[in-house]
Order: sequence, then C-alpha cells, then structure tokens
Amino acid sequence: MTTNIFALGLGVGTHNSNGEWLDIFYPKPLLYPTPELTACIANLDLEQANNTPLSSEQRSQLHAALVACGDAGQAEVAQQLCNSDAPTVAVLLRSDEAPATVPEAYLKLHLLSHRLVKPHGTDLTGLFGILPNVAWTNEGAVDLAELPQRQLAARLKGEVLEVSCVDKFPKMTNYVVPEGVRIAHTARVRLGAYLGKGTTVMHEGFVNFNAGTIGPGMIEGRISAGVVIGAGSDLGGGASIIGTLSGGGKIVISVGEECLIGANAGIGFPLGDRCTVEAGLYVTAGTKVSMIAADGKTVERVKARELAGKSDLLFRRNSGSGAVECLTNRSAVELNAELHAHN
Amino acid sequence: MTTNIFALGLGVGTHNSNGEWLDIFYPKPLLYPTPELTACIANLDLEQANNTPLSSEQRSQLHAALVACGDAGQAEVAQQLCNSDAPTVAVLLRSDEAPATVPEAYLKLHLLSHRLVKPHGTDLTGLFGILPNVAWTNEGAVDLAELPQRQLAARLKGEVLEVSCVDKFPKMTNYVVPEGVRIAHTARVRLGAYLGKGTTVMHEGFVNFNAGTIGPGMIEGRISAGVVIGAGSDLGGGASIIGTLSGGGKIVISVGEECLIGANAGIGFPLGDRCTVEAGLYVTAGTKVSMIAADGKTVERVKARELAGKSDLLFRRNSGSGAVECLTNRSAVELNAELHAHN
Amino acid sequence: MTTNIFALGLGVGTHNSNGEWLDIFYPKPLLYPTPELTACIANLDLEQANNTPLSSEQRSQLHAALVACGDAGQAEVAQQLCNSDAPTVAVLLRSDEAPATVPEAYLKLHLLSHRLVKPHGTDLTGLFGILPNVAWTNEGAVDLAELPQRQLAARLKGEVLEVSCVDKFPKMTNYVVPEGVRIAHTARVRLGAYLGKGTTVMHEGFVNFNAGTIGPGMIEGRISAGVVIGAGSDLGGGASIIGTLSGGGKIVISVGEECLIGANAGIGFPLGDRCTVEAGLYVTAGTKVSMIAADGKTVERVKARELAGKSDLLFRRNSGSGAVECLTNRSAVELNAELHAHN
Repeated sequence: MTTNIFALGLGVGTHNSNGEWLDIFYPKPLLYPTPELTACIANLDLEQANNTPLSSEQRSQLHAALVACGDAGQAEVAQQLCNSDAPTVAVLLRSDEAPATVPEAYLKLHLLSHRLVKPHGTDLTGLFGILPNVAWTNEGAVDLAELPQRQLAARLKGEVLEVSCVDKFPKMTNYVVPEGVRIAHTARVRLGAYLGKGTTVMHEGFVNFNAGTIGPGMIEGRISAGVVIGAGSDLGGGASIIGTLSGGGKIVISVGEECLIGANAGIGFPLGDRCTVEAGLYVTAGTKVSMIAADGKTVERVKARELAGKSDLLFRRNSGSGAVECLTNRSAVELNAELHAHN
Repeated sequence: MTTNIFALGLGVGTHNSNGEWLDIFYPKPLLYPTPELTACIANLDLEQANNTPLSSEQRSQLHAALVACGDAGQAEVAQQLCNSDAPTVAVLLRSDEAPATVPEAYLKLHLLSHRLVKPHGTDLTGLFGILPNVAWTNEGAVDLAELPQRQLAARLKGEVLEVSCVDKFPKMTNYVVPEGVRIAHTARVRLGAYLGKGTTVMHEGFVNFNAGTIGPGMIEGRISAGVVIGAGSDLGGGASIIGTLSGGGKIVISVGEECLIGANAGIGFPLGDRCTVEAGLYVTAGTKVSMIAADGKTVERVKARELAGKSDLLFRRNSGSGAVECLTNRSAVELNAELHAHN
Repeated sequence: MTTNIFALGLGVGTHNSNGEWLDIFYPKPLLYPTPELTACIANLDLEQANNTPLSSEQRSQLHAALVACGDAGQAEVAQQLCNSDAPTVAVLLRSDEAPATVPEAYLKLHLLSHRLVKPHGTDLTGLFGILPNVAWTNEGAVDLAELPQRQLAARLKGEVLEVSCVDKFPKMTNYVVPEGVRIAHTARVRLGAYLGKGTTVMHEGFVNFNAGTIGPGMIEGRISAGVVIGAGSDLGGGASIIGTLSGGGKIVISVGEECLIGANAGIGFPLGDRCTVEAGLYVTAGTKVSMIAADGKTVERVKARELAGKSDLLFRRNSGSGAVECLTNRSAVELNAELHAHN
C-alpha cells in the first residue's frame, strides 16, 4: 500500500572530514509528490536513508525507479547524481515533523525558498540545534575545526580561502534563485527565505529564514524571522521589523498589502493593509499613539498593539508636538467602535 | 568629413548561450575622442556594430587604425582584444542619446564610474528596460535561465557557484576602481556610481548609479539614485537620502559642501552648504520645521522643502519639546527675507 | 642574556610587483612568548627582519630552532613556511610600540582578532599611515596600480577578478575565525576586531578594528573603532554607536553588561550595565535628558554625557510629549546624589 508523503529531495552536499553533513543542495525539491512517484520509490526504503549518503547502487536504483514512473525532471536529477564526486542523499519526509537531521533541515529550507511552502508552512522546531555552524567559503562549506589548516594551505600557495559567512544558514542564492526576483546583495537573504514573484531586495534589504514577501514589493529594510510582507508593500531603506511581539503572547508580526514603511522607520506590531509609517519613526507594540480624527482632534491614546492588523492607518510623529500620532481615512466614530469591539 | 562623437568604448563581455550580451567591461572608455582618433576609425563603420561582437578581422583593423592615429592607450586595448577568448565589442556613440543596447548602456555606466561624466551628465532614459537581470557569480555573469544547471554542475564536482548578486546592475569595482577612493564593502556601490577623489565609502555606505560624491568625503549612509554629495560632506552611518522630492515636481535631491548628516538621520529635500542634521533625525520634504532665531525664539514654522538648497542650517529635534527645529547662524530678519523672497 | 619580548608572528603574505607587502597572514601569533622560545630564537636576529621576507636558509634555521625549544605548534608553522610559494616573514616585537612596518601592523591586528589583546590593549598609533590601500580580490591582495591590467587579463580569458573590498583593512575571517562565534556576513568585521566567545554578528552588524565584544552577545548594529560591548549585551538591528565623545575630551565609548540597545537606536556616550535604549531613539552626548523618578515626575534635565557609565537606566522618547526621558529603578534621591557626586 502506498501512502501520501510530505516531501522528497534528491540532493548533493558537503561532508566534513568525519563524514558529517555540512550542507545539502537540492536542485528540484518536491512537495507532496504524486502517488505515482511515491509508488515507484516505495520499495527503495529512502526514509531510512535520510542522513546516509547514497551508494552507487542506490543511485542507479533511484534513477531507474524515477524513469519507470515517468517523472522526467526527477529522473534527470537522479541521473546527474549518479556521476557526482560529492556525497549525495535522498530525503523522504513522510509527514511534516520537526527536522531530525541536517539533510532534513536543508530540505525544509529549500521548500521555503523554492516557494513550495509559505513561511510558517512547515515545522522548523529545533532547527538551530540541528544545523551546524559552518564556514562558507569559495571552496564551499568548510568545518570550522578544519578551517585554519585550509586557510594556511591556501596561503602557502599564494591563494586565499575566502570566508564569506560563518553561520548556520548559508545565503539563499547559492541554492536557488526563484523566478522573477532581484536581490542586489545576496549575502542578505538566508536560505529559507520566501521571496514572492516581483520582489526586489535592495542592498540594504534583508530577509531571514521562514520569512519573506508575497510579492511584488520593494524591500530595502530588514524582514526578521517569521515576518511576512503582503503584496504591493514597500519596506524603506534601513526600516526594521521586530520579530515577535514582546507583549500579549507570541503574535506573529506581519505587514499587509500596499503598505509603505518609510526609510529608517520600524514597527513592532502587525500592520493591516494600506498603512503608512513615516520615515524615521519607530512604533513598538508599547508605543502610545494619539488617534487623530478627521477634524484633527485627538480621539484617545492607545498602545500600538491595539492597532494590530488594522488597515488604512498612517503613523507619524508630529513635528511640532513630538507626539506619535495615527491618522485614518475612517471616521472617528467608526474607528473608536472598531478599537473597542473586543473590550 | 569627420564629425565629433560623444563616446567610444572598446570592451570585452559575456554572452548567454543565445549570444545575447549580459555585461561588458570597458577598460578605457573615451569621452569626446579627439578628432584625430575619430578620423582614424571613421571608415570602420563601428556605429553599426554597437551590439555585434567584433570579428577577428574587425579587431585587427581596429588595432591597426588606432596604431595609425598614435593613440597608444586605445591601441593597446585593441591589441589585447585581438587575443580575447570572450566576445568583444566596439561601441561608438555619435551623440548622447538614450541607450538602445546592452553595450551602449554599459558604456554609459562606465563613463560615470570613470568620472568622465557627472551624475545627470548623460542620458540614461530607458536604462532599466535595456539592462538584463543577471546572476553575478564567481564565474562571471550568468543568465538566470542557465543558472540552475550551472549550479548543479558545480555541486556535482564538489564546488559551489557563488551567486553574489541577482540584479540589473553589477558592482562598480569589478569594472573600475577610480583613483583615490576606499570602498570597504564593494557590493554597496553599483556600476554607474560616481565617486570623487578622496571619497571613502564605509561598510554601511551605499551609492546607487547616476549618483555619488564630488569628494572628498566620508560616506557611511545611503546615496540614492540621482543624489550628489558636495565636497567635504560626511554622511553618517545608516543615514538615508530620499531619491526625489515627492512634492513640488521632480526636484533632484543633493547635499552641498561641508555638510554633516548624522548617523541614522535622513533627508528628503536638498541641502545647501555647511548644513548639519542631528543624528537620528529624519526630515522629509513635508516636515514642518520651527525656525529658531539667534535669541532662541521661534520665528515661524515652514515645510522643509521651503529650505531646499539653503546653507548654514542646523536641524535637530528638541529633546524637551519634541519639535523639529532649524537653527542658523544668520539673523532672523535675514532668514525670513530669504524664505519669502519668491513668495 | 635573554629578555622578554612582546609578540612574535610567523606569517605568509602578499607582495606587489615592487616587493612591497600588501598583507600578512599569521596562523598562530604569539603574545609574550615563553622565555624558552625567546632564548631559542635569540640568535636568529629576527628583530632586524621585521619587514624582510625570509630566505630559504632563514626558514630552515627558524624551524630548527623552534623544534629545538620544543614548541610543536610554532615549529609546525615554521615547517610549513619552508614550503611556501608566497613570501614569508617572522616579526618579533620586543615591546609594544607603534607599528613601523606593514608586517608589524598586521601582527597587531592579528593579536586583537586572536583575542590575545583586548581593544586598546596594544599601541596602534599611526596605523592608518602604515597600512596600504589594497584591492582585496578572489586572487588575494592586489596593488591598486596593478589592478586594471589584472582585471583586463581575467576578462580576456572569460573570467572575472572579483574585487570585494578596496580598503586598508581586510575582513577578519580571511585571517582568523575565533572560536565560538557566528558572523553572518563577514565583510562587516574588519581584521583587528575582537569578538568574544558567544558573539553572533548578524548581517546588519558591524565591528571595526580595535573594537568588539567581550561576549556573549547579539550584534545587529555598528560597533565603531574603539568601542567595546560588555558581556550579555545586545545591539539591535541598525543601532549606531558613535566612536568618541565629541565633548569632554577623548572619552572612549563603551557599553556595559546586559544592556539592550534597540533597533535603529544610537548612543554617543558610554553606558553602564543593564541599560536600555528604546528602538529608534538616538541619544548623543549633548542630548538633554529628563530624569524621571519613580513617581513619574521629572527630577531635572541633564546632558546625556553626565550619565556616562551609570547603570540601570532606561532611555526613551515620551510618545506623548516628545521629550527624551531617562528612567531608573533607583530612587530619585539616590540618583540625584550620584549625578552630583563629582560637582
């Protein structure tokens, strides 16, 4: 009997000198493979091999099975793995559970960056503990314990081992560049970021893993882990979005559609649609905000977290009084009723 | 008869597998070549070849012509192009018109970064539409459609294809490093930036194309497209300059000489000379500013855009009242007269 | 007679075509070598050779001497230098004086990044004048005068010479990655930075030379030259620390232990322990701060520099009044007494 599976990845990666995985590159990860494909590979016992490099024989069997089930794309990958000088792996995730091995963790990060799952769309529990800290170099992933000797060896030849990152997460673009994006400086987008079509990440932009944009949008500020930006929204240069609300539980911060967060601004609570935050203004969840009605009068002062998810708001600091204000195109009565709807 | 020409570039570049240009490197671009040089190359019909790789015969003819006219520098470039493994091109721009091909667009960007024209000094109309979006890698420019296979091929050999940028604009320093500059992190300066002698761009600095510094100066903040910073001015860490005024037409934002824009500050209107913006203060064009006279009294409140281009101003947010203030070393009467001179 | 010496470095480096040093890599720099080691190398006259590449004979003698004194680590380095294709050097600093040569300057920067001396722990007088401005490329350090020809040569072969930095300081991680750190984007940490164990420098973090963290800590903002951050302190995304106090002499800016400087915030004076600066607030040394007592009343207004080094303070901008305020968990009487203790 064949059951559905969550994801499948055929990959090629890097080992340290102890044969431990440092990273894995999955050229064509699959979410919910078809029943046909699942049936074809059912007797290969891949699930038991989620952390073990494929033998030459296993690679041949895998290739044959994928040819047999008619999946040309996966069969092509399998064929290429047959000729790999680097260690290869096949990871089969029967269900969406917390990753238990480096290959599983990397497959999940690939699912996000290949736009197969949205941020918060797969279980990443314990991810930091699974991922090794790695030196990312021009010669690929290098174990930190092996780095000094590799650096000296390069130097003695008159070369340099370029260490561009020392981190648990590599840059996304060395694994996948999703269609329809520009990323002016790729060191600022981690593998596991989700960039929707039409997203431009400028040099000052940043996107963490399990976070991103629905797209299109212009990202010149920092999208922390877990944060999602809606379609048509712009994040100004140097703008900051705090990862989680420090009060009121673990509310996920998000930005709705067609918002504009100005340069050097910041927010610490979720925005609805069509909101604007003035350049240079930081509104944390606890910032007290003066609600300004259409007649210019202050209706009341509320903490910003009470405005979470509300649309059509404009935040500014009054340049005369210094007060943080919120304007809206809705009437004071309407606004007031909404704010207190759940009191 | 020989006429003047605007610019000439002999270059070597990269093609995708369809023979389309991805980028061009011009080692010694020329602005307004001498009449002698223009005469020498007149019968080579280069203008018709602005997008076509040079044949071996054309390269020899070009070299011979440049030797004949006695331009040793260009002749040397031409000679080296004769032995190129990569596609070469000669671009002749009879006048300064909107770029029509990738080689023309790259020549114009080179003119800026070689300090041959200042920002706004050449017609860049339609530039975004002409430039292809490219994966910039350690193996050079790679077509995005060809990237996945190239990445997999590198991986199978145990190597990695480092993708450092996915953008229409490459980094300037892979094409030219103008004399007398330091650029601590080159990914932050696009080809087409203009960096005057004595400019230091620190790690947090950024310079877009068609923008830059007259120099000298210390740039630790972001210079948006179209913005020019005068000599002797410092842009503090994380400081932001908005590209264009959102009101009052398409006024170009600029900063005069000997200005100091503090860390994490920002401006959205042009500054004159010797102006200071306090660290952390963002003054947009629409910010209402209290004009403070020498006696400490507020003369009036004006929108910052009314102060565009005025010199000797200091902007701060009063740490007691929260008001955005502007101080000057000129008398209130003088200032007031100037502000209302064009009412 | 053998005297104590300050530091010793066996290194391999890069020359320009004139035989001038561009950089030196010291795999295992030594601070205060043991008397035994000092005695062993005493007759090699290394001190006279601080700027001269080692001859083949000198390298053999050095290796023999280090084997003789039983220092396996240094002997191993010396052995490897014997087989170097690149120029090698042995630098002996008898005392801690201002660096006089490029190899001496690089040794001092290594002492900092290897955590052998803390920031301000070695004399760096005149460092900028000693260090050459260098193009840091995928082929190593390149003299700026030799760069254009190297770039063209690479292009003619269809390759690209990647110029990642044009600066007097290279990135730290191409020389050493100290144990127990993560550096998400290595271009932002200069050689000469001191990163304590447990330090994470995120993509937006930056650490200059002669500056750093005692660790552990999360650094997402900019640590200017000379600034030190105490253990357990976090520097938020885009936060800025000004290098030196502009008033009151050359006071070194520092941050104590367990401080939290919010995203896009900034300080221009030293903080004590357990201080908090609200996200988005920039407090310069001259900012007037309202001291708020436990009863919510303003005790007095003081310039921030008067609060230098004091602990348990929270800085915020009142979102209603716009005033910069400082709260403390100590009583107003206690605070007032402390502020005026040295009047």
